Amino acid sequence: MEQILENIHEHLHLLKDEELRRIANEMPLGDLLDMWRFLSEEEAVRVFLLLSLERKVNLITSLGSNEQEWLIKSLSLENARVLFEEMEPDDVVDILQEVSPSVREAVWNSLSDSAKQLTKFLLRFDEDDAAGIMTPRYLAIRQTITIGEAIAFIRKNGADVETVYYVYVVDQFKRLIGVVSLKDLLFVDDTVRIEDMMTRNFVFVREETDQEEAAKTLEAHDHIALPVLDRYNRLLGIITFDDVFDVIREEQTEDVYKMGAMEGRIDPYLGSSVFSLVKRRIPWLIILLIAGTITTNLINLYEPLLLGAAFLIWFVPVITQTGGNSGTQSSTLMIRGIATGEIVFRDLGRILLKEFVVGLLLGIGLALVIFLRGVFLPPGIEWFQALAIAAALAFVVLFSSVIGAFAPLIIYRAGLDPTVMAGPLMATVIDVAGLTIYFEVASLILNL
Amino acid sequence: MEQILENIHEHLHLLKDEELRRIANEMPLGDLLDMWRFLSEEEAVRVFLLLSLERKVNLITSLGSNEQEWLIKSLSLENARVLFEEMEPDDVVDILQEVSPSVREAVWNSLSDSAKQLTKFLLRFDEDDAAGIMTPRYLAIRQTITIGEAIAFIRKNGADVETVYYVYVVDQFKRLIGVVSLKDLLFVDDTVRIEDMMTRNFVFVREETDQEEAAKTLEAHDHIALPVLDRYNRLLGIITFDDVFDVIREEQTEDVYKMGAMEGRIDPYLGSSVFSLVKRRIPWLIILLIAGTITTNLINLYEPLLLGAAFLIWFVPVITQTGGNSGTQSSTLMIRGIATGEIVFRDLGRILLKEFVVGLLLGIGLALVIFLRGVFLPPGIEWFQALAIAAALAFVVLFSSVIGAFAPLIIYRAGLDPTVMAGPLMATVIDVAGLTIYFEVASLILNL
Repeated sequence: MEQILENIHEHLHLLKDEELRRIANEMPLGDLLDMWRFLSEEEAVRVFLLLSLERKVNLITSLGSNEQEWLIKSLSLENARVLFEEMEPDDVVDILQEVSPSVREAVWNSLSDSAKQLTKFLLRFDEDDAAGIMTPRYLAIRQTITIGEAIAFIRKNGADVETVYYVYVVDQFKRLIGVVSLKDLLFVDDTVRIEDMMTRNFVFVREETDQEEAAKTLEAHDHIALPVLDRYNRLLGIITFDDVFDVIREEQTEDVYKMGAMEGRIDPYLGSSVFSLVKRRIPWLIILLIAGTITTNLINLYEPLLLGAAFLIWFVPVITQTGGNSGTQSSTLMIRGIATGEIVFRDLGRILLKEFVVGLLLGIGLALVIFLRGVFLPPGIEWFQALAIAAALAFVVLFSSVIGAFAPLIIYRAGLDPTVMAGPLMATVIDVAGLTIYFEVASLILNL
Repeated sequence: MEQILENIHEHLHLLKDEELRRIANEMPLGDLLDMWRFLSEEEAVRVFLLLSLERKVNLITSLGSNEQEWLIKSLSLENARVLFEEMEPDDVVDILQEVSPSVREAVWNSLSDSAKQLTKFLLRFDEDDAAGIMTPRYLAIRQTITIGEAIAFIRKNGADVETVYYVYVVDQFKRLIGVVSLKDLLFVDDTVRIEDMMTRNFVFVREETDQEEAAKTLEAHDHIALPVLDRYNRLLGIITFDDVFDVIREEQTEDVYKMGAMEGRIDPYLGSSVFSLVKRRIPWLIILLIAGTITTNLINLYEPLLLGAAFLIWFVPVITQTGGNSGTQSSTLMIRGIATGEIVFRDLGRILLKEFVVGLLLGIGLALVIFLRGVFLPPGIEWFQALAIAAALAFVVLFSSVIGAFAPLIIYRAGLDPTVMAGPLMATVIDVAGLTIYFEVASLILNL
């Protein structure tokens, strides 16, 4: 696939506008997005201008903010106006929140008056809250009308909203009192009144509900859309399933960043200043550096041992590295199991037992490898020296596997986020404990 | 929130069945799932049996396979039969594919004959393909009927399908020739024929399309459902947006596992045997162990230097650790940027420049920390010794930041998966290169 895309890309300059227009409009959007990454800015603009308006909107809302930024800059005023006119207000708000102030102003000026009003309303809310991802374009009706009237209403106003599949029933104060799905309407006689068939026990979220929480609610119920209410139960807008895709992806990014020892707040890399990147990255590096220097004292402490067996120091990096790797494996399994709900607390005993056996087997396997490597490959050590190192490594791996599983579970039980604590912090703990185990076991076997 | 859930949990035994039934059926499903983790098996079964049938289905399809397994085992035959009768066939298939053979048989036996047939049909397909996540319960009509007839057909058959919001138009060979949304139907006169208003240029996937690819297609188009076709263009089933939520989460798990140096294939932890866990974890550990022992030769090589400056060895673990941490940070940012489409190839130059500056600032900051720590905290070294270590660390951090950004981009450009290569493999490269830089810079400054 990638190969084909690269071929199209390489032959792009040979294609006439008409051919390129056809190809770019008919290829699956996913492929177009893949191809996009290989294009120069000039080629990208050429392709973009050839797309249909609907496809332009689909593409630009799928791009990263840095791509959005320069692409919007390269558009003519009229092109930008038509584009933002077509876009859903919540997508416009997403773009406004991500791009630089100058582009933001250009986008703002290209909006129609009614779009400006909707956008202003949405910008009032925190972008991490449920209200921050909702659209104000939904269908609302009163409870006293009939199904037939409701269908006529949907026909008249359905073109301007994000979904016609749910219709929201509100009272005179705009408070939500019921929900009707288009499916429900189909199965009931036209003369029935809305209040006699609407769902009164509907699922909803509050404006200040965290967006991840809101996403989980929609996901758990498999609903196409979810109403967002203020504290007086007034309907502010709706969250649709496609917004939830974005939230899950964002959440994913935060978790991955945390595993990489960074604060989880999403700021796209290219849009971040050097200063903000340093600010985000240095706190954990300093904490881990200071914690890590415990190993400095440790090696200093074991210097007498090292005088008698200098070869032990040759293996220090590989011992800590391997301990870290096996600990990371088991903590990764736990963190993920907790996140997906696969692992629950009552499993703690079983898990530790399992990790003990797995760690033992891993330790024995790796000990065998390092024993052979130590004896047969340069710098070359005696077999009893290699035995000491192998035995020590086995204990380190066993310890790391068990602690790597235990720590995330305990951290989660205490109500903290195991994602942040795992990874590098675990590595530091394992470095310190692992080195101690290494020196102690080796000295015992070498009888020093 | 967690606190409240724990409170409910702690008072569970005080609640009468009627109260518990009301609470458990009315609380948001997400909260119920959170509470579930704190329950003992006995309590969990009690709560489950009090749920409404719809909620039972929602809950059990949201649980991990290990939870599904024992829960199904604890149900009476009749309870299980009613439950699986209510469930969507693709959800039944998911459960069948995850649980142990004995539970699988019990589930199978509890299915009605028609459910067995649907399930058998679905089990023919690979669970990682588009066809593996589709449901065969969709609405299909012929092109010659009118809108009015189509709506009557939907009314008659809509209760048995997963979505009524798209209706699929097929010819006499079951080949898909058009798609009509319920929204489209609303806006057209009842007497119009389907063929005159159906969308012929519809989005679809093939049965063998990878499920992640299919998920991306649905996501890019924001469709509620996507038809799955065989190679003769016959309609096999549809993928709905809620299946895509599951695919995104699975994909997420695979990526996280890869970052933790494990093969990405999803096998729930608790359901995996010790042997399969060892098999999945040991390959990378051995590769990294062998690669990591290059540091053994390296320290051996620099032994003459260490004889003159023994304190250098005290800082070896913290130097490799810090190099690894800063390299992980920048590679994490790249991997994620590539995954979200935020970073494209033409940005390579800008990124390396940025990482150079960021790495320089991080290096200077961390050098300052280790200088102060070296001089003022035990074991205590001379200021010029601390200076040598600090300068060496700065270079290591600078190198790690740049290489951590460079490597994933080059790996991706070559058509490989940067997720697997990053993390531990990066750490090994940084260990080796970092130690060399460390020893060289330190010996230069110490004039040894």
